[in-house]
Amino acid sequence: MSARTPRLIITSGEPAGIGPDLCISLINHSFPAELVVAIDPNLFAERAAQLNYPITKLITNIAINEPPTPGALKILPLKTPHPVVPGQPTPDNASYILEQLNTAISGCQQGIFSGMVTAPINKSIINEAGIAFSGHTEYLAQQTLSQQVVMMLATKDMKVALVTTHHPLRQVANLITPALLEQVIRTLNKDLTRYFGLQKPTILVCGLNPHAGENGYLGREELDIINPTLNKLKKEGLTLVGPLPADTLFTPKHLKTADVVLAMYHDQGLPVLKFHGFGKAANITLGLPIIRTSVDHGTALDLAGSGKASSGSLMTAIEYAIYMTQNKQ
Amino acid sequence: MSARTPRLIITSGEPAGIGPDLCISLINHSFPAELVVAIDPNLFAERAAQLNYPITKLITNIAINEPPTPGALKILPLKTPHPVVPGQPTPDNASYILEQLNTAISGCQQGIFSGMVTAPINKSIINEAGIAFSGHTEYLAQQTLSQQVVMMLATKDMKVALVTTHHPLRQVANLITPALLEQVIRTLNKDLTRYFGLQKPTILVCGLNPHAGENGYLGREELDIINPTLNKLKKEGLTLVGPLPADTLFTPKHLKTADVVLAMYHDQGLPVLKFHGFGKAANITLGLPIIRTSVDHGTALDLAGSGKASSGSLMTAIEYAIYMTQNKQ
Repeated sequence: MSARTPRLIITSGEPAGIGPDLCISLINHSFPAELVVAIDPNLFAERAAQLNYPITKLITNIAINEPPTPGALKILPLKTPHPVVPGQPTPDNASYILEQLNTAISGCQQGIFSGMVTAPINKSIINEAGIAFSGHTEYLAQQTLSQQVVMMLATKDMKVALVTTHHPLRQVANLITPALLEQVIRTLNKDLTRYFGLQKPTILVCGLNPHAGENGYLGREELDIINPTLNKLKKEGLTLVGPLPADTLFTPKHLKTADVVLAMYHDQGLPVLKFHGFGKAANITLGLPIIRTSVDHGTALDLAGSGKASSGSLMTAIEYAIYMTQNKQ
Repeated sequence: MSARTPRLIITSGEPAGIGPDLCISLINHSFPAELVVAIDPNLFAERAAQLNYPITKLITNIAINEPPTPGALKILPLKTPHPVVPGQPTPDNASYILEQLNTAISGCQQGIFSGMVTAPINKSIINEAGIAFSGHTEYLAQQTLSQQVVMMLATKDMKVALVTTHHPLRQVANLITPALLEQVIRTLNKDLTRYFGLQKPTILVCGLNPHAGENGYLGREELDIINPTLNKLKKEGLTLVGPLPADTLFTPKHLKTADVVLAMYHDQGLPVLKFHGFGKAANITLGLPIIRTSVDHGTALDLAGSGKASSGSLMTAIEYAIYMTQNKQ
């Protein structure tokens, strides 16, 4: 495989959602990469017809011993056990969704693919099939035996990573421990260096409390947990700035100095990121042994087959997977 | 007083901070209002000279029995007990700061002024003077015997109000009670109608938890507290939408329908607002018997007298005070 032309696998996700629609829309785009979509070829052809995409033939021969072909769109054929009705997901197709993921993980680990890009799935449908499943990211971490993964959302010019992700707000303060914060920052620093060509990334760190605690007046976690952890890591040479108040951090003065913003929790960092990069943000999982990017939205069941789904997030996810492959050290 | 031309009082705030600088910069602007700055005339003249503003004469006769003069900038003369050194606040001048506020409150209550606009102060300096003081907003609420005030930040085209304001994050979930939420929404709805010409404002309400709790999977406050409260108020005819996930609420699809966004806590709502309206956001206190707007920034002691302070937030605060006066019902 050429170091310059990635071969990426794209999991099309929930077959009843907009994942297949987004993958089909790739026909209209050309990336400096070979894209391989894990999907049922019949589903691809049917949904393409529904969306009025002219499909002449599908390339299902991936030719893994040949160099990737820039601009190519190929199919890695899988089979849905149950007929697919757009907008109506069924647990009977849960195994098909996991097969996409397993094929992608294994292909990345073997070096057949340089990275994986994931279209959306419905957690609840997989659980209804009797398979315990708490999310893409968690599944990937389990399957690759990764200790600490970090969720980072990125638009073209802003990156926001999270210390904690999907937890009730009342649990957040107790989850912010020195050990977790240290692991997250180390993972973030390491993978920004490894995949983004940043030799010494500048990480802006939010406080946990409003005004970053205002010297303990509005909460002590900055004094007791965040400051000592940042100081320890700064002594090792990491470039960390903060803790800064979240409401003034996201202004040009600070952002122009930053490679990434580290928010303490979901709704502290993601509203700004999604406001800024509406419809064009990608979700990147750091801390895995493989490159994985994702759309930042759900299956939008009501839009499946309608032609109204926006592919902006998938485009950004593919662009970042290409960038990470090409900048990997 | 003409209904069309407001007479506003502007408290210049901490004399060692940028408040006087910002008030002096009003010389270069003309508003459809008469602006009266509460300040020591000597401080005004000295700082103006330092900033190279040509002052020919100061108008200290407010002529309260005459109609306000559009475009006029006048001085309500007070006296600092202690000499002012830019950048070096002293508790000896705390009484001067409170005198500005008391004069403004009293003048608004008597109808001499149609509203007050506040430049920044340092809470800690006032406390060092032995006067318990937890902030502008709290002081105004006390002095006017207001039961429930609501903090709302506004740029020209976005408004974000908060259910809770300056509290450690670990306390936030317990502070969100049905009683508080109901009071805040009633105050917000009432004052948007009263001051902003909105007969039936549309209020978008954030969930407390990420993804607005995802049906209880990520926290139960939406199911147990927020939904029942919103349903109760919707039955009375209020236009409330939510609870919505904060990270998708701040996107055009939702924002274009909203008169205001109600965030559950400080760092859920203000990072987006300040990112969007950097340097040009005003802080508006609802629930008072008087109109009060404010800058959204601090005293910036290091910039006092430098000419580098940006007056964008003060301009927006004045524009909103004018708007609220002219739309008051």
